[in-house]
Amino acid sequence: MTELIYEQPLNEKIRSYLRLEYLAQQLQANLDDDHQHRCFYPLFSLCELSERCDYRGEVLKDLDRQLFALSKWQSLPSINDDQVELYISKLTAARDILQLAQRAGHQLKQDRFLTALRQRFNMPGASCNFDLPQLHYWLAKPWEERQAEYQEWMSHFASLLSPVNLLLDLTRQTTEYQVKQASGGFYQGNSEQALSLIRVKLSAEQGCYPTISGHRNRYAIHFVQFDQQKHSDQTVEFELATCP
Amino acid sequence: MTELIYEQPLNEKIRSYLRLEYLAQQLQANLDDDHQHRCFYPLFSLCELSERCDYRGEVLKDLDRQLFALSKWQSLPSINDDQVELYISKLTAARDILQLAQRAGHQLKQDRFLTALRQRFNMPGASCNFDLPQLHYWLAKPWEERQAEYQEWMSHFASLLSPVNLLLDLTRQTTEYQVKQASGGFYQGNSEQALSLIRVKLSAEQGCYPTISGHRNRYAIHFVQFDQQKHSDQTVEFELATCP
Repeated sequence: MTELIYEQPLNEKIRSYLRLEYLAQQLQANLDDDHQHRCFYPLFSLCELSERCDYRGEVLKDLDRQLFALSKWQSLPSINDDQVELYISKLTAARDILQLAQRAGHQLKQDRFLTALRQRFNMPGASCNFDLPQLHYWLAKPWEERQAEYQEWMSHFASLLSPVNLLLDLTRQTTEYQVKQASGGFYQGNSEQALSLIRVKLSAEQGCYPTISGHRNRYAIHFVQFDQQKHSDQTVEFELATCP
Repeated sequence: MTELIYEQPLNEKIRSYLRLEYLAQQLQANLDDDHQHRCFYPLFSLCELSERCDYRGEVLKDLDRQLFALSKWQSLPSINDDQVELYISKLTAARDILQLAQRAGHQLKQDRFLTALRQRFNMPGASCNFDLPQLHYWLAKPWEERQAEYQEWMSHFASLLSPVNLLLDLTRQTTEYQVKQASGGFYQGNSEQALSLIRVKLSAEQGCYPTISGHRNRYAIHFVQFDQQKHSDQTVEFELATCP
């Protein structure tokens, strides 16, 4: 049985984090396996997002907030001290690196090879042999060489992406899944505490996926039959976690 | 030794053909190996190009022109008759199919899954789990199932892409490679007959790639050192084919 997790951010901060995390996972996948020219899509997406918005300020603030919260937990007797200490040291390290870092991806702008590619990558079919002979040359290099270069390009985003990873990790760990039923393919809920992330775990065998909407204290989940692309009228059993 | 071929179209028709051929190769690569969500890029590029321009008229005209030329060759005693007949039957079959076909990719517009994906695929990082839960669902399907669906989507472009393939094949076969030297990294040539395609074969070990420019009767080739990203001042040995 394939269990799939669907997530919906309920605020802009988590929305940005999830987008960055998704791109970070893509970078890693392109480092692990040779997807040829396809590897440039998430790299250029990250360049674009981090040019539009300097995430550092928000991430630094968030790191401080989490460190403060963890230091309070540390004094509680019921808490696993080692776990908390590990997070505190990881978060502190990430904050120190991010504070000193240049804006993510800034240096890649000086790379003439990447700049030439990036100009054409959003145009349909415009990374042909004759559009970008340098890409044709680059793709013929041994995979190990390309991999090393890719890793170097990725590293420019590490100071931003590592803390985002940690912060999402902490958000997800706040809440355990609970089994729920959506009768007529619909479920809604509310929470007194403001929520930031809704997580739905569902087996692929049910043949449907959730579309989730919501804001802070309320959320609704519609299940959609994939094959007919229309709302399910069945009772759907799923697991739900609502993270503050 | 890795030998690379660089091509430069010298007219708009061949330029379009090469772009379509490049996308056809991408489709095939995505059918052969599982590149996950990355497989949609060439599919959507083809949708976009064939919406912008209906290539059928031009390709049909070109098929007729080639069939006429081949039928004249057939009568010459020095020509390999079997080869010519094979091409005539392939071109005729391709023309018959293309004449009856709907505009390439037209039917895919009715596919709600593809339409939803396509709207988001050009936005940076916008094919996340929460942007496109249906994509998350689709990617968890067994590869064989996804492969079959991909093949079905590809098939909508076959009537256009097969003749383009044949026509490029015929263009390339007109001319054999000749060894040339570019002193100071530069080579230029001209031809009384109008040219449509310049092909440069070069070993990757020379550390450079060609940038080719030209129009009909004249062309120039500059070799660029990949590592320094600047024009080479060395003598570069390469092979050249100039196809009418």
